[in-house]
Amino acid sequence: MFKITALENGLENVQGFYCGATNVGMRTNPANSGLSELDGDVAFIRSEVPCDISAVFTSNTFQAAPIKHFQNYPQGFQTDFVLINAKNANAMTGQKGIDDINTIMHTLHNKIDVLNPVMSSTGVIGYRLPLEKITSAFSKLDFQGKNSHLAARAIMTTDSFKKELAYKVELEDGSSFNIAAICKGAGMINPAMATMLCFVVTDANVPKTDMDTLLTASTEQSFNRISVDGDTSTNDTVMLLANKTSGTYDKQAFSEALNKIMFELAMMILRDGEGANKLVSFEVKGAKTVEEAQKASRALSNSLLVKTALFGEDPNWGRIASTIGASGIACDDETLTIHYDDLLIYSGAYRELDKVREEKAYTIMKQAEFKVTCDLGLGEAAYTSYGCDLSYEYVKINAEYRT
Amino acid sequence: MFKITALENGLENVQGFYCGATNVGMRTNPANSGLSELDGDVAFIRSEVPCDISAVFTSNTFQAAPIKHFQNYPQGFQTDFVLINAKNANAMTGQKGIDDINTIMHTLHNKIDVLNPVMSSTGVIGYRLPLEKITSAFSKLDFQGKNSHLAARAIMTTDSFKKELAYKVELEDGSSFNIAAICKGAGMINPAMATMLCFVVTDANVPKTDMDTLLTASTEQSFNRISVDGDTSTNDTVMLLANKTSGTYDKQAFSEALNKIMFELAMMILRDGEGANKLVSFEVKGAKTVEEAQKASRALSNSLLVKTALFGEDPNWGRIASTIGASGIACDDETLTIHYDDLLIYSGAYRELDKVREEKAYTIMKQAEFKVTCDLGLGEAAYTSYGCDLSYEYVKINAEYRT
Repeated sequence: MFKITALENGLENVQGFYCGATNVGMRTNPANSGLSELDGDVAFIRSEVPCDISAVFTSNTFQAAPIKHFQNYPQGFQTDFVLINAKNANAMTGQKGIDDINTIMHTLHNKIDVLNPVMSSTGVIGYRLPLEKITSAFSKLDFQGKNSHLAARAIMTTDSFKKELAYKVELEDGSSFNIAAICKGAGMINPAMATMLCFVVTDANVPKTDMDTLLTASTEQSFNRISVDGDTSTNDTVMLLANKTSGTYDKQAFSEALNKIMFELAMMILRDGEGANKLVSFEVKGAKTVEEAQKASRALSNSLLVKTALFGEDPNWGRIASTIGASGIACDDETLTIHYDDLLIYSGAYRELDKVREEKAYTIMKQAEFKVTCDLGLGEAAYTSYGCDLSYEYVKINAEYRT
Repeated sequence: MFKITALENGLENVQGFYCGATNVGMRTNPANSGLSELDGDVAFIRSEVPCDISAVFTSNTFQAAPIKHFQNYPQGFQTDFVLINAKNANAMTGQKGIDDINTIMHTLHNKIDVLNPVMSSTGVIGYRLPLEKITSAFSKLDFQGKNSHLAARAIMTTDSFKKELAYKVELEDGSSFNIAAICKGAGMINPAMATMLCFVVTDANVPKTDMDTLLTASTEQSFNRISVDGDTSTNDTVMLLANKTSGTYDKQAFSEALNKIMFELAMMILRDGEGANKLVSFEVKGAKTVEEAQKASRALSNSLLVKTALFGEDPNWGRIASTIGASGIACDDETLTIHYDDLLIYSGAYRELDKVREEKAYTIMKQAEFKVTCDLGLGEAAYTSYGCDLSYEYVKINAEYRT
């Protein structure tokens, strides 16, 4: 038995970690976010002692320079420093992009003693990092500070709110450990990661092998199941740093806490989907295989026509059915049923939407969150993904976003 | 040698075919189209003599009732009548949807002698056809009329303009045949058909086997290469009717004329993409296989981020590169080059966009049509698909479209 309790604030809840951010002048045009020119654009996470680190990166072939830089360290390396910048992705910058990180880290070494520092970037693709600006952060950052708010805000791009969470995990013997995370992401969220960065820190005494397997499993249950617009960025990164200083560990408890923190952050990203107003879960069940259920579920959370129908609060189930049919999986309109929350809205025997059900469906769709369940009636496999509506605002944000 | 000449108007150019349309009161809310309540909603195409017919239908598993009704005829059947309605797709209506078509055709038989009549529908999914309204058309339609304009307008849904084309094909020996078509489609156009209907008629003496193979090949070169929003409808249909009355045929000439008429109609659909202002071709070349080139090209024409960047006229190539990388094909940022029209905008050696090139790119993107060429530099295979931008108007149309 164990108990998971939510804590106020973020990373400062985990002993031995420092964090903070500063502004080096990269936020010249913060129009689309909730940010001003004065908000931070360079953040750090630092540990007093070397940490084990696990990471899951984007499946995009063009992985950004910080990911390649990370992968140049030997397997199983330890680190005590993560540097993060917004506004520039350092992606498609070739070897020079990696050289730039080495230059930055060289400057950092002159300022503070760090072990195998890693970097993470988000922003526009195709531009070299402004080295002078970024290294100017090192004389401004308080490396002994613990300001998770500042760090969480500094990594935002089109996000409209900062994302940070922390939990205390108490085991039956009275021992405990903490886990905390900051995260950014709003647009380009795809089932298969997203333009999202997530940094989880813990003082749990978790073995490195568990870190690797549990982080991958958690990512599959969280960030890989959300969709804003079906694109996958060059920079997507989830990192887990463990300093082990609590001396406490229980695999099941840690796994549950990690799943919980990552799933809740994923839902925060979806609620902050660019221009999105509704969070909708798409469960496809009764499929012949999980792969087919996943394919149909992801097709639903990615479909433009479904997304615009959600925005228009149109209870017609036709776009749901058509999208399932277009996904190429085995399905049959006689065995298919569709529910909005608990309301049966389509079955082979009941096809046309009468006024009473249409009104009920309309009430369901007006909610900020609801569930679409499609039972294919052909097997036992199921998969759920999560999506949001597509609004005028999405187009506006993405037509205008660059610098 | 042969000569293909464009003709005025549409289907009336092909001898032996009649066509027209009437209004039976289904257009109760024509807000989003260029139509009024008085425009036609039921159209027909009729031939004096039995025609061979070939068709290509949607790959959506939930094929609409008219498609199933068509497929109930024996292989190689002949027909002399096509009935088309807008506003109601007769999709996901089960066996009753097919029974409804049989009822309609029974009424038609009482009015006029027809052979194996086929039907085609477009509109909202999940509602039974209004039988009385549709059969009321039969006393209003002029079955001896030749009004292609009326028919082309009557099949429109969210289209903002009618689509009809006709060509005369003259062979070296002085003989000739004609080919003509009407078409509808605007939204939901996907590389893999679309919510589109296309009816091609010809008096060429084309053998049935050539009809089948050439229609499939032409569809692959035209409607399967365009994308408005990546969805595939339940009703997509391309039909070719040949009455053979000219007695004239040349395979190469016919193939070219068919390709030409279908490609031009596909481009008309794309230009009429819901809320779209720009037509962009995405050529991916230098790929290892055609499948990979196709996958990347389609990813580009379907990407929301690419579409919104087109709408915003943002010359940043980062979204193009990121989308190629996300498509899962073999690619390398050192060998990749990207051109907008003839302007090199990215290469491994030249990554950052300077002001001069950015201005040139901006000028190119302001055009109503332009070309994006991505050379992967890895092989010889190529594929081109066609897309359009995503505007506020798309969201508005699709949030509001239903009845």
